[in-house]
Amino acid sequence: MKSRAAVAFKAGEPLQVAEIDVAPPQKHEVLVKITHTGICHTDAFTLSGEDPEGLFPVVLGHEGAGIVVEVGEGVTSVKPGDHVIPLYTAECGQCLFCKSGKTNLCTAVRTTQGKGLMPDGTSRFSYQGKPIFHYMGCSTFSEYTVVAEVSLAKINPLANPEQVCLLGCGVTTGLGAVKNTAKVQEGDSVAVFGLGGIGLAVIHGAKLAKAGRIIAIDINPAKFELAKYFGATDFVNPADFDKPIQQVIIEMTQWGVDHSFECIGNVNVMRAALECAHRGWGQSVVIGVAGAGQEISTRPFQLVTGRRWLGSAFGGVKGRSQLPAMVEDAMAGRIELEPFVTHTMPLTDINEAFELMHAGKSIRSVVHF
Amino acid sequence: MKSRAAVAFKAGEPLQVAEIDVAPPQKHEVLVKITHTGICHTDAFTLSGEDPEGLFPVVLGHEGAGIVVEVGEGVTSVKPGDHVIPLYTAECGQCLFCKSGKTNLCTAVRTTQGKGLMPDGTSRFSYQGKPIFHYMGCSTFSEYTVVAEVSLAKINPLANPEQVCLLGCGVTTGLGAVKNTAKVQEGDSVAVFGLGGIGLAVIHGAKLAKAGRIIAIDINPAKFELAKYFGATDFVNPADFDKPIQQVIIEMTQWGVDHSFECIGNVNVMRAALECAHRGWGQSVVIGVAGAGQEISTRPFQLVTGRRWLGSAFGGVKGRSQLPAMVEDAMAGRIELEPFVTHTMPLTDINEAFELMHAGKSIRSVVHF
Repeated sequence: MKSRAAVAFKAGEPLQVAEIDVAPPQKHEVLVKITHTGICHTDAFTLSGEDPEGLFPVVLGHEGAGIVVEVGEGVTSVKPGDHVIPLYTAECGQCLFCKSGKTNLCTAVRTTQGKGLMPDGTSRFSYQGKPIFHYMGCSTFSEYTVVAEVSLAKINPLANPEQVCLLGCGVTTGLGAVKNTAKVQEGDSVAVFGLGGIGLAVIHGAKLAKAGRIIAIDINPAKFELAKYFGATDFVNPADFDKPIQQVIIEMTQWGVDHSFECIGNVNVMRAALECAHRGWGQSVVIGVAGAGQEISTRPFQLVTGRRWLGSAFGGVKGRSQLPAMVEDAMAGRIELEPFVTHTMPLTDINEAFELMHAGKSIRSVVHF
Repeated sequence: MKSRAAVAFKAGEPLQVAEIDVAPPQKHEVLVKITHTGICHTDAFTLSGEDPEGLFPVVLGHEGAGIVVEVGEGVTSVKPGDHVIPLYTAECGQCLFCKSGKTNLCTAVRTTQGKGLMPDGTSRFSYQGKPIFHYMGCSTFSEYTVVAEVSLAKINPLANPEQVCLLGCGVTTGLGAVKNTAKVQEGDSVAVFGLGGIGLAVIHGAKLAKAGRIIAIDINPAKFELAKYFGATDFVNPADFDKPIQQVIIEMTQWGVDHSFECIGNVNVMRAALECAHRGWGQSVVIGVAGAGQEISTRPFQLVTGRRWLGSAFGGVKGRSQLPAMVEDAMAGRIELEPFVTHTMPLTDINEAFELMHAGKSIRSVVHF
């Protein structure tokens, strides 16, 4: 079938809205009509060409919501008409990782997903007869996309797709990092480095966990207003200080914070986040994605004196089993999504969403198909 | 009073056995007659001059057992005749850290201890009228030493001091890192880098925790016999491989080990230990003490894909409240100490203990006063 899509034909160039061909879903695959998609920094990272695993031409996008149109052979968990969120972290329920109960890092479709292909090693997308790669198992920048059955969370059809599409990546990543990875407790102190969508979601999650002090850190003070809205209690602009930001946070808190979160992807900030964690028990969660080949470092003394360095992917959330309840939470107002959606636009204006993001003017732009 | 002591007059030179002067215990201090002391790599590290916080002249030693001789004003928890183990990690029960229930890193005497002084900022040791520094709050290389009351664990007087002195550092550090820091569970896989006293104690602790596979790693294959005795199931000499040791461990285990422990103090090994931890949930505990200014590093992807980097000091054990029970465990044979004591000697031969350690010929030498 034909589908409107924003295609990344080449690294570093704007997306081109084109009519592509989408092949029918194969065994254990599902054809989904995407109604809304968020634009995330990871899409921009791959588009820039800095992602060493980036493949072109490709249909980007991994933060979407849609409706099942057609299912391939053997698909039992969804049917046409079901409302779904595509998952870049699948949940097969069968692999070592799913069965462990310790992680959400399912391996079912991992290898082919990393190669921009469906589990059988081929693509469902083509343009003028030439194949186009899939992206993160989702490719939500196409109105019609094919995803693996294990990569779909079935959600309440009454949910607002313009908002719950954000649960496909950024907001879930932030909320989950607080709840599942750091396990923030009532009264704990928290420092959040970077106030984009993920950082704000971390603040939202920390507030929901009844954290005490929530320190919001960004070099763009325009972000502080929304951080305050979500519950941040302290606001720090590193540009206001001559000393390392970890020292500033330690001086503010005497011994550092119980939990810190790096939501940027900057390895120097990752170090600062670790080093401002509380002596004895503070932990720091790396969420941001660093550039290719970049490394984090610190003195081991930081760990020996009780700090813990962790990371989180998709907030440790198991998409198929846990995302539906998060959608319910959003519908009930326990999770707030509306403030994250600062801009909406049609598919034809998708490049504007990237520009807004690069300019630091948007939290999330959502494209309506 | 006069006391026989092995004094480190200068960095990089052998210890000299001399008769020093020991002043009476002051308020909240205790005079202890040391009967036995182990020799640990940390003593050698400071003696070498590489420890940036090393001070000279000093009475080293921090792994001892002894008997209370005299108590200063206000001391209530021990009395003359009590058998004790000096603690380089105090436990005051009153500070933020002791009260947290989350760490053993008491701050009661931390500042002065780091300066080689008693809590009032002075020394109790002198030689020919000139002060000598204390070391790690213990200075067990002197027959008579003065320690803070909060730095003494009172133990069963029937315990064998030649063995339980090792609970003052190495063995407790290893056992505790397994139990308190990593919290190894039945069936878990474990990799141990470095088979000195601490590494062997980690293996002992892993076996006590009913770990499954226990991989012992050392470039000195002579260490494998004792590792096997304590419960190691696999033995790896990195010198036998052309590829990075983390890759070897991952190939042996498919996805890495549930827990890894660095028991050397080598920052490159710390990285290898992290990177051989299991995708999704593996954790790596830094125990070894690295040289001044050295840093650990890795790609943040290692953390984002679920590995956790931790550290442990004195095995997370709270000395006064937890060490007495470990002494009971040793007396009951649940903790084995005898195999760690490979050499014993009088104080006059203490430099031989350092030579044996540097040559990799001893696990622990214990000096009898």
